[in-house]
Amino acid sequence: MSIRKSLAPFNCSLARTADLIGDGWSMLILRDLFLGARHFGEFAASTGMARNILAQRLKHLAAAGLILREGPTNRPLYSLTDQGYDLVPALLALIQWGDRWLSDGKPPMILRDHKGRKLPAITLRSRKDKKLDPRQVRVQPGPGADDRTTAWLKGLNAD
Amino acid sequence: MSIRKSLAPFNCSLARTADLIGDGWSMLILRDLFLGARHFGEFAASTGMARNILAQRLKHLAAAGLILREGPTNRPLYSLTDQGYDLVPALLALIQWGDRWLSDGKPPMILRDHKGRKLPAITLRSRKDKKLDPRQVRVQPGPGADDRTTAWLKGLNAD
Repeated sequence: MSIRKSLAPFNCSLARTADLIGDGWSMLILRDLFLGARHFGEFAASTGMARNILAQRLKHLAAAGLILREGPTNRPLYSLTDQGYDLVPALLALIQWGDRWLSDGKPPMILRDHKGRKLPAITLRSRKDKKLDPRQVRVQPGPGADDRTTAWLKGLNAD
Repeated sequence: MSIRKSLAPFNCSLARTADLIGDGWSMLILRDLFLGARHFGEFAASTGMARNILAQRLKHLAAAGLILREGPTNRPLYSLTDQGYDLVPALLALIQWGDRWLSDGKPPMILRDHKGRKLPAITLRSRKDKKLDPRQVRVQPGPGADDRTTAWLKGLNAD
């Protein structure tokens, strides 16, 4: 699928996610679906992707369970699955970061909540629902960590 | 920098962000820095990246303002800048998504808050701090939208 060496073998959920959707094109397709685009032509218009690459990415995202393809074969309708929608907070966090750091104070899109109020910045929360600084987050090997991941994380903490 | 056609010309903060860090390798380097890695050899060990690609990505991330390079030339120390730390919530949201959908219930890493409690899922919030479903978010062209973006978004809403 990807030109680069696959990241998926790495024992990390970020590597697995990046391997699946880290390709910029896939993220733009998911963004378009979130915005309400349904048709091949709409994705093509907004992203400027070559049609063969777009078709390949759509197939890839459908096989991975993030999007659903329905309707007539000659004019299929695409939509996000629950798994796809579950990725939206992460995508919006990336958009908000781009708004803050790469947009000269002029965001291309304004995100609003269900009442039309500007969507607040997506932040980390503690278990007690208090805002949490990223520097306060701690990490330890989980049940899915292999020996290499465990050793690497322990090496960092020992510094 | 990237093998693919640049996404940055697109009038969208996600495209700009993906163009900068959407490359899976860059995300893994930022993850490592967040986890406390400081040295070239640590990134090389955890990611398995070729040294020339790793060097190129570090230079790219430093030029973009996400990471800082300090210390002796023959053994530089890397760290996240404020701009880099500001991306951590998005990266952790991607990790949590991978934990939910790509890890067979066995996350490789456990994320904890400052008191050692498991970090809750990163969610969208309304202006009133209520949890918000991604389907409830509305989008409109912002001050940085060009005519094409504006027309495209209006076309979707007209459906």
